[in-house]
This record gives sequence, C-alpha cells and structure tokens, in this order.
Amino acid sequence: MRQKIGILGATGMVGQRFIQLLEHHPWFEVAWLAASDRSSGKRYGDAVRWKLDTPIPERIAAMEISPAQPEGAPQVIFAALDADIAREMEPKFAAAGCAVISNSSAFRMQADVPLVIPEVNADHLALLEQQEWRKQSGGYIVTNPNCSAIGLVLALKPLEERFGIESIFVSTMQAVSGAGYPGVASLDIMGNVVPFIKNEEEKLQEETLRLLGKLQSNLVHPLDAKITAHCNRVAVEDGHTESVSVKLKRKATREDLLAAWQEFAPLAGRDLPTAPAQPVETIEAVDRPQPRLDRMRGAGMAATVGRVRPCSLLDWKFTVLSHNTIRGAAGAALLNAELLVSLGKLNPSAVPA
Amino acid sequence: MRQKIGILGATGMVGQRFIQLLEHHPWFEVAWLAASDRSSGKRYGDAVRWKLDTPIPERIAAMEISPAQPEGAPQVIFAALDADIAREMEPKFAAAGCAVISNSSAFRMQADVPLVIPEVNADHLALLEQQEWRKQSGGYIVTNPNCSAIGLVLALKPLEERFGIESIFVSTMQAVSGAGYPGVASLDIMGNVVPFIKNEEEKLQEETLRLLGKLQSNLVHPLDAKITAHCNRVAVEDGHTESVSVKLKRKATREDLLAAWQEFAPLAGRDLPTAPAQPVETIEAVDRPQPRLDRMRGAGMAATVGRVRPCSLLDWKFTVLSHNTIRGAAGAALLNAELLVSLGKLNPSAVPA
Amino acid sequence: MRQKIGILGATGMVGQRFIQLLEHHPWFEVAWLAASDRSSGKRYGDAVRWKLDTPIPERIAAMEISPAQPEGAPQVIFAALDADIAREMEPKFAAAGCAVISNSSAFRMQADVPLVIPEVNADHLALLEQQEWRKQSGGYIVTNPNCSAIGLVLALKPLEERFGIESIFVSTMQAVSGAGYPGVASLDIMGNVVPFIKNEEEKLQEETLRLLGKLQSNLVHPLDAKITAHCNRVAVEDGHTESVSVKLKRKATREDLLAAWQEFAPLAGRDLPTAPAQPVETIEAVDRPQPRLDRMRGAGMAATVGRVRPCSLLDWKFTVLSHNTIRGAAGAALLNAELLVSLGKLNPSAVPA
Amino acid sequence: MRQKIGILGATGMVGQRFIQLLEHHPWFEVAWLAASDRSSGKRYGDAVRWKLDTPIPERIAAMEISPAQPEGAPQVIFAALDADIAREMEPKFAAAGCAVISNSSAFRMQADVPLVIPEVNADHLALLEQQEWRKQSGGYIVTNPNCSAIGLVLALKPLEERFGIESIFVSTMQAVSGAGYPGVASLDIMGNVVPFIKNEEEKLQEETLRLLGKLQSNLVHPLDAKITAHCNRVAVEDGHTESVSVKLKRKATREDLLAAWQEFAPLAGRDLPTAPAQPVETIEAVDRPQPRLDRMRGAGMAATVGRVRPCSLLDWKFTVLSHNTIRGAAGAALLNAELLVSLGKLNPSAVPA
Repeated sequence: MRQKIGILGATGMVGQRFIQLLEHHPWFEVAWLAASDRSSGKRYGDAVRWKLDTPIPERIAAMEISPAQPEGAPQVIFAALDADIAREMEPKFAAAGCAVISNSSAFRMQADVPLVIPEVNADHLALLEQQEWRKQSGGYIVTNPNCSAIGLVLALKPLEERFGIESIFVSTMQAVSGAGYPGVASLDIMGNVVPFIKNEEEKLQEETLRLLGKLQSNLVHPLDAKITAHCNRVAVEDGHTESVSVKLKRKATREDLLAAWQEFAPLAGRDLPTAPAQPVETIEAVDRPQPRLDRMRGAGMAATVGRVRPCSLLDWKFTVLSHNTIRGAAGAALLNAELLVSLGKLNPSAVPA
Repeated sequence: MRQKIGILGATGMVGQRFIQLLEHHPWFEVAWLAASDRSSGKRYGDAVRWKLDTPIPERIAAMEISPAQPEGAPQVIFAALDADIAREMEPKFAAAGCAVISNSSAFRMQADVPLVIPEVNADHLALLEQQEWRKQSGGYIVTNPNCSAIGLVLALKPLEERFGIESIFVSTMQAVSGAGYPGVASLDIMGNVVPFIKNEEEKLQEETLRLLGKLQSNLVHPLDAKITAHCNRVAVEDGHTESVSVKLKRKATREDLLAAWQEFAPLAGRDLPTAPAQPVETIEAVDRPQPRLDRMRGAGMAATVGRVRPCSLLDWKFTVLSHNTIRGAAGAALLNAELLVSLGKLNPSAVPA
Repeated sequence: MRQKIGILGATGMVGQRFIQLLEHHPWFEVAWLAASDRSSGKRYGDAVRWKLDTPIPERIAAMEISPAQPEGAPQVIFAALDADIAREMEPKFAAAGCAVISNSSAFRMQADVPLVIPEVNADHLALLEQQEWRKQSGGYIVTNPNCSAIGLVLALKPLEERFGIESIFVSTMQAVSGAGYPGVASLDIMGNVVPFIKNEEEKLQEETLRLLGKLQSNLVHPLDAKITAHCNRVAVEDGHTESVSVKLKRKATREDLLAAWQEFAPLAGRDLPTAPAQPVETIEAVDRPQPRLDRMRGAGMAATVGRVRPCSLLDWKFTVLSHNTIRGAAGAALLNAELLVSLGKLNPSAVPA
Repeated sequence: MRQKIGILGATGMVGQRFIQLLEHHPWFEVAWLAASDRSSGKRYGDAVRWKLDTPIPERIAAMEISPAQPEGAPQVIFAALDADIAREMEPKFAAAGCAVISNSSAFRMQADVPLVIPEVNADHLALLEQQEWRKQSGGYIVTNPNCSAIGLVLALKPLEERFGIESIFVSTMQAVSGAGYPGVASLDIMGNVVPFIKNEEEKLQEETLRLLGKLQSNLVHPLDAKITAHCNRVAVEDGHTESVSVKLKRKATREDLLAAWQEFAPLAGRDLPTAPAQPVETIEAVDRPQPRLDRMRGAGMAATVGRVRPCSLLDWKFTVLSHNTIRGAAGAALLNAELLVSLGKLNPSAVPA
C-alpha cells in the first residue's frame, strides 16, 4: 500500500520531474494532479507540454487535472508553484490538514517553516510542530532550498562540521531549466551569458546560512559566516556549476577536505529510496565536474566536487555541480518527504489530535 | 606611406583578427605573412581556415605565406604564436632588429619585457630599452596580457587609481574562441561548462598584479594586493564575462565607482586609431553586460561594466565583459603598436645606433 | 531633406532591425514609432528589450512611442506586426493615405497586394494601383515575402529566367530570430531541432510560386511548377539555411548555373542604398554557405549559394543561405521602399488626386 | 556463461558506447580492449577521454589495453575503427577466425560482406558464407550501415514492403557525436549549420538502396529506386533528424502508412536483448520527433517518425529521428551480433572445419 500523494503545479518543469521521479517510487503513488485553472478538467497528457526525455507515464497522461483546492486532495502534497501563487495556495492546503512538501521560495525564510536538506539539517524539521496549521489541523509546510543553494550547501556542510566556515564566495553558472518553461528565451542565452537571475543571489546567500544554522529554542540561528554570491545564467539545459572559495576556521589539508566529503553519509542506514549512497562525490580529473557529464551522478541526487585547490584570498577553492531540477528541486522535495516518513511525521495517522 | 608590418602566426584565430583589424588601418599595411612550415609557400587564402564573419580581404588572400624567419620580414612584426613556438621564434626576430608586438604568453613575465595595456601602464614600455636585443639590433619584444586579464584590469585600473585595491576575487566565463581553432571540441562545450583552462588562473592572477604594478628603477613592482581567480569555459563564441568582487583601500560610493570608470580616458588626445573613446563603458540595465550584446562596444575595444552592487564579503561586486580576440588579443597588440608609434618607438629610424 | 517614415511594431525584433538599418539611411528618417498599447506613451528606450549587438541610437531611444493610429503618423509606414494585428491595422493606415510597406503575412496573397522582391518581380508593384485604398486616399499596402522564401526565390529567379523551373524541393534549417522575441524557448532548441514551424511550409510554397509568377491583366499567375517544403527550426541565432533540389526545363551545366547567379544584377544602375551589389553570391568552399560566416554578405542583403552538385532525383542540388531578419524581413521592406522611391511611387506628392 | 568479446577502437566515441551498452549484457562480456598503439599497455581508464554521462564501469576502467592484433583476442570482435584503419585491420581479424562485427564503412559495399539491419535485411547475412576468410578460418566480417542511413531505412522498409518505393528525397540534420571526438570544432557548429559531411551523401544514398535490396544468387541487387540526399551538421549532441519525401509504387493513405510503421515487428519472438519492442515508433504531436526528447525511445534503438503529411512533389513527407551512436552505431552492431547468435552463426564452435 503506497501513500497517495498529490502534485500542485503538475504541468510545470518541476511538476514534470515529480511525475518522472515518482513513477516507480516504492512508497508514494501519484493520485491527484492540480495546475492552473486553465488546465483544470483536462487530461494531464493534453494539458502539459512535456519536456523530459522519458515519455509521460500512460497512467498519468490519462489522469484528469483537479482544481487547485484542498477538497478531494490527498493528505500529502508536493508543491511546485511559483512563489506568488504558493504564498496564497500552500497555507490553504496546510490549514486543511495536508503535509505540504514545497519547492517554492514563498515560506522558506519564515521562522516556523523548516527549510531542509535531509543530509544537512534534518533536525530543523522539528520546527514544523510550531506551525499554527499543525496545531489546528495536523497540516504543515516543509520547504527545500533554491536550486543554486542545494549543491553549495551539500559541499559546505562536511567542511562546516569538521573545520568550521568563516566566509564563502560563490559564483554560479546556472542552467536554463531552473527558470521553468518557456522560461529563458533562446535569443537571450544561445552563445551568451546573462549575469543576472532575479532574487537569486539574495536567496542563495540567505538560505545557505539558514541551512547551515543551528536550531535552538525553536529558532534557527543562521551560520555566523560571511557569504557573497554572483549568479549567472549560461547555455546549459540542466545542472548548476558553481565556483566556490571558502575560508575555514581550522586549518585543513586537501586530503582533510576530500575525506570530509567522501565520508559524509548522514543518512546511512535510513534506506530512503531517493537518497544517493554518497551525497557528495569527488572527482580528480582536472576539468571536472561538468554539467553534461556529471549531473546524473547518484541518479541526479549527488553533488560533485572537483578542482580542489588552494585559494590565495580565502583558504580553498573548488567547483561544485548538482542537477538543478532533480537534486535542486523535485528530488529535494521527494527526499524531504521520505525523511518525514522515516521520522513518522508524514503518515496522516501520526497527526496529533 | 603606411608602415609595412608582418604577421607571425597569420593563419590562426588571432592572426585572422589581425588581418581583419588591419584591413583599413591608417598607419599600418600588411606586407608579410608567416605561418607554420606546412603553410609556407601557399597562398594565404588556400592555407587559412578563415573563421570570421567578414570575408578575407582579396589582397591578403592572394599573398604568399613566407617562412617564419626574420630574413625578408618587415621591421614591425605582430606575433600570434602559441607560447612554445613564441619562446623560440620571437627572440630571433627581436635579435634581427624587429619590433615584435606579441600576443603570446611566452615573455610576459620576463623582467625586461613590457607587459602593457596602453590605458593602464603605458609607462612600463620604458622597460624595452633594457632588452639586450634592443641594445644590439634595435629590436625588442612588447607583450599584451592574456585575454582574461585585459577586461579585468581595465575595470580595476580606475578603481586602483582613485581608491586603491586590497583584494580581488574573479570568476570567469570564457568564450571558446580564446582556445583558437579547432580548439574546444563541440562535444565538450555544447550545453556544458568546463571549469578549467590550462594555466589560465595563474596567468590571470600574475598578469593582473604586474599590469597594475609600478615601474621603479627599471623593475615592475606588482601591485601589493591579493587576487584569486576561477576560470571557466562556457558555450559562447566571443566575449569573456567575469564576476568580480573587490576590496578597496578607501571608502567609495557606487557613484564614485561609476565616475571613476566613466571618466577614465588616459589616452585622450593621443588619437590612436584603435583606441576606444571610452575604454570602460558602464551599463545600468540589470542583466548586462552580456557577450552577445555588448562585446562589440567601442568596436570590440571597450570593456563593459555592469551590475555594480555591494559585496557582503569584500566591498563591491560587478560584472565586466570584453571581447577576447579583439580587445583581448589582436586589438590589444595593435593598440600597443599604435602607442609605440605615438611615442616614436616603433619607427625603425628611431632605433638607437 | 530625408523622407520621414514611421514604424509600426517598433519594439519587436523586426522593428529593431528597421531602426538599426535606418540609422544612417540617406533617404529616410525615423520620425514616428508605434507599438502595442502597453508601450504607448513610453520612451522607446524604456519600452524596448533591445536585442541587437549595436546600441540603440540615442535619438531613437529618447523618442516617445505613439499610439498605433494613423492620426499624426507620417505618410510612409514600415510595418512589422504579427499577422493578426496587421490584418486589422494596416488597412487603417492605407485608408488614411499611407504607403504601408509591410513585412507581415496578412495580405501577401491578396490579389491586389504586391508581394515583391525588388530583384525578382519589381513589375508586380503595378498591382498597387488596383487597391481601393489607393484610389480613395492614395494609400496602399506593399508586402515582402516570408523570411524563408526570400533566399530561396533569389536563388531560383536566375535559374527560372535562363532555364525554366519544373519542380523544387526545399528543406529549411531556420534561425530562432525568425520567431521574434521571446519566441523560441531555450529549452526547445538548445541541442535540438524542431521539425515544425506553424504555417511556414504553406507560406514558403505559395509565396515562392507567386513571386516567380507573371503579372498579366492585373493578376499574378503563379509559376507553373511543383514545390514541396520541409521547414525546421535549428539552434542558430540568425540566418536561414536551405537544402534545395531543382528540376529545370532546359539542360544546364554547373557553369551555366554559376553564371546565372553571378550575372544576376537586375537592379544595376538604380543605386538603391540597401541593394547589394550582387544579390546572389556563390561560394566554392565545399562546406559553405554557413549562417555564422556568410549571413552578413552584402551587409546581410545577399543570398549565398554553395554546394552546387547534380541531383540524382531532380537535376541540381545546392544550399542557399540568407539573413532572415535583414534580407528576410526589415531589409526586404526597406529595399521595397527604396524601389518605390525610385519609381516615384513613394513620394506623397505623387499620390493621385 | 557469457560469450567473451573484444572491442577494436575501444577509446573512441563508438567504442565508449559499446562499453556502455555491454555493461549488463546478458549474452556478452567485454574481455579484451584494443586501441591505437599510443594507448596500448595503458589502463583503459587512463587512456580514454570518456564522454558519456554514465561513469566508466570500474572493471573496464581497470582493464589493460591490448595491442590491436588478433593474437590473444577473443573470437568475437566489435570494431569501431576509422575506415582507413578498418580496411587494414579487420581482414586480419577475420583471417584469424574472428567474427568481426564492424561499424566501419570500409567493407560495407563489398559484394560478399553483409550490410545488415536485423529488422530490415537479416537474410543478407547469408553472404558471409561466401567470404574467403570464412572458408579458410571460420572468421568473417559483418557490417552495419552509416548512422544517417539506419533511421531512414527503418522508416522506409515497412513502406517498401507494403507499397513499394519509387523515389526518395532526404535532407539530414546530423548530430556532432557522429564525427567522433574531438570531431567537430565548437567554433564550427555553435549557432551554426555546416551543410557538408564528407562522403556522407554518397554513403546514405548507396547504403539505403543496398539495405532495401534483394539477395539473389549470393548477390545483393539494390532497390531499383531513385534517391537523393542533402547532409547537414547541426548543433545537436546526439540524434540525427531527417526530412524525407517519398514516392510509392502503390497508393496508400496516411492511415496505411501509420499502420505499416506501427505493425512493423520483424524480430518479434526472437528475444534479442537489444531489439526494441517497436523498431519504428510514430508520434502525433505536430512538432515531433525532436532529438532531445525522442532519441532515447526504445533505449535509443527505436526510430521515431512524425509529421506524416502529403507531399506536393512526391507522395508523402515525414520526419524521422534516430540516435546516431546507439541505433546508428554501437547498438546497431550489437543487434547484429545478437542476431548472429540467434542464427547460430556467432558461436565459435559453429565454425565450419
């Protein structure tokens, strides 16, 4: 008996990834799809402009798109909405008793909403018990970070744990799929770089410090470190590449860093279906990681670190890559849901009275 | 009567740019072309794989390629050779009395070889009088920087002059034409990023400090600042984009920075044909500069700065863009030659006895 | 004294090309700009998302966008509107006495509207005298063909004149700029081919036969030939490449074909500023024409033919390339206007009473 | 017990695909790798520049590369060599008793060498018994067609069977991986089309007719039809797209064509591991097939046909797409080998005395 789940924003790029990743999922079954009013009532296969390179599962293509309302929706909702719509819609589902596993930025920085990467700050999930929705109906909102933050934070967490982090410089080269569909116009990006993504630098900076922060007295205290981000869009379909420099609190050798990444396995033993065996892979080839070659490591859920070398300004520099619509979006939310299951918090019957 | 010049490495990408830029040049006339032994003796039009979007000038196409030896070569040589070959070849021409205006990295860091951007450190040209070749035959070598350094240094120089620079972070997104032809394989860069360019970070770091350094007692003292570079290759034909953070010695407002760039006109009054009216252009649109739209500013000779905003780690961050095979290579050498003319140092009759 | 002209649809991709091509035009001066209601009243520089690699002329950037109505508009209008809007708007301007030089498909196939390429069927312009608008107010509509038809027809016309054409096969590889901005989504075209462009094959087939047709008794009799088109979109910014096979009525050698193209100069002596010296250039290199290298021949107004070789099904096959937003759109309309001037039909004072 | 096989040309793009496709193959086991002399003696992982997006299997990476000589090689050899080298090398292996399953063009048109697509002309395999090598040592050479021919022929075969084919027009848009690595330079193909691939049109024309031909008295009589090909390279990583027009001998409706493709299943019942369930898939969406979305149908082994519509010159036109390095190269050879196994011709013990 798999848990029935619903997808809000099922026709968008991240919605499509949810469907792809859930197709043979052992725990979850897609039972409900919602999208904009324009699509409501249509067959999913007719409403969606499917852009993935695996076909739409036939069962899903035949499903009817429901109105985006809690009535009739399952109790577990994956939400892939634009921030504006999420801000209005997600609270309705939480208030109606749903577990809303959100990929949107709308509530990521709200004090009582967990912003979580399972390998990084699973303990922050405790925050959800503070939510008014939770107290009233059992429902809640849990969020995963921006697609540019996830790869960075996966790379930084093992360093923070072992050596402490003082400051972070990051310059991104982000894929077009991060902007959804139709998203980036071809005339803007073919043979080009766009050195700007709206609100992205702010999110990347804030979310990184919050994810690496400590939960104390029901409050997340962001990591006390300096961070600056440059965000750029490049002509890549999938996979965000990031040039990172970092200053550590304690001295570490190159081998220390590599060991920190390679031994990082905080979910070992939990058997979460979507969790990669090694969340941070390292690669020695001098010109890697590259999005085309490395984004699918760990079935798209691993971050890959390469080019580890001394930095003449901070301590170390390296490149990190992760798949922006798998690890950086749908896969991130899915892993959050799996973690909630393993903590006994997703099961509707576990809801407090 | 235009000065006859020769081009060493005339069939490569930079050699082609030299020919394109010199086609209607008021001071110089292409009179001699040399390339590898394989091409020697052929018509230029038959030997070259012309990759520019303007046609090969007919007169040039009909010229015969000479052996790469000083015999019969004109006294002014533009050199567009790979470093290994330059290391062997350029001294022969200098020893034979030629002014070698080189785009190669071979001698850039040699103490008595000027590494010059005319707007930045024209005074470093004095070094050439120290060269043994100069003393013996009148010949010399003058170099321009790496294509990734030129845009950065043009952006930094006005800041260094007015506010002083303490530290620099730069992450590049470099065009494929920087690697010559055939250069980067399409399978390596289509839909991809390669986070590595051999020796590029080293050159970018070293050359930047040397260019911003002071000439004292016939020695260049590099700028006393910290610099760290991340160099990446992206799917762009022409134009290097760089994300830069900088720490200044003296406080400056955003307006101060913009004024420094906009008022930067060190060559004003010299009337050098290839010098752009404004070496550093600024742009306010939030998503600029972009290589496809901005690389041809100042006929490919201006650097464009945009996205000027505070940096939470250093003081300011911005994006700078410049055309890598015009301002970053052939145009750079050409401007060096024009400066030498205006200083009376290119004219063979000016050579000391 | 230059003729004042207006541009309808001034903010789109073709509107921008009009502004770029008209910047230093000896005969015409941009005096009026109109766009959608949303833009009306704004400074052009604020309303447009300029996508060309030369800057917006400052005078134009400062102009205010007018409502898209004939009141206050100059008597010569370049129209770059979507077909639906053109269908409603262009007649209003023609009825008000304007010469509407249109790039839209709306009226191309209307019996009394000239569909003209100056080098191909200038005599079809006589049709405009049949227009009701012309009779009432002096105004009229003249159109140029679809961007995919122009290059093909330029290549076919010299063959039709000398050898007659019986059948035509064409398969296109069209640039994204043909779809306007934002137009083609990057996720649809990066590393991809889209084998479909709405209505394009129909237009390419119909327009080609009409352009090569004969005007008799105020009616265009389309060329009596068979034509079939396959239209594809590829990852190219500018320049449509077309693979063509053709069956001729009379035997011709390869040299005959080349001579037909090279000697094709129907506008010789007219001194139209935008007319290329050689409307059809031929190129012998085995792997040309290519959009990146050849689209700017004749300042973007020449079609380039290469790979001329026997066809085992029809008689000959070749590749033709032309710039889709210059020769295929704005430049086409501009050349039509110049031809009208030279025929004394654009001058408002020449309008019949 | 899996059959041990060797790979000649193991480090190239097709060699890499062989390794990828054979990783979990139920019948074959990679036991021997050979490449150029330069690589011989090295670990495969050190010698190869791996360009696929799945990692090198560890067992393979650790294997030592053998000299390219029959001594010590297994009796079944997959060959992925350039034509020049294949011409010299493959006969050596055949003479030594090896079954050489070749992807090279060297012997495809030799009278006694089968050129085979299992779904199309399996009976041509009988030719191998005519080979002198076969008679002497039991060895032989079997070839698969050029990557541009396979998709076309898969689409044509069902039509030829049911309706007969009179003439064929094909214009290709081919991926860069077809040229191997480094292959196509990025400066040649980014934002560009190259309307030429050396010898490709000849191969596509000849091989298509031979594949559709009849074997009679130990000779292949090519299909008696006219065919003309235009071959173009476009900026796509993998997947050849082809615009096709075809004239049939007998009238057929659109439904007849679709049925012919959908019911085409000549290998049904053979259970070959690499054979796709449906060799020719059809797709109704108006803008498909597209390489990015459809090349992996049937695990990269299906050809996809779409845009079926009447042709005003021949009878029907359509677009066909297939993966050029899977169905068009390594997968094609692998399927040939599987067919040989199922016919009892690959097993070395079946070799005549």
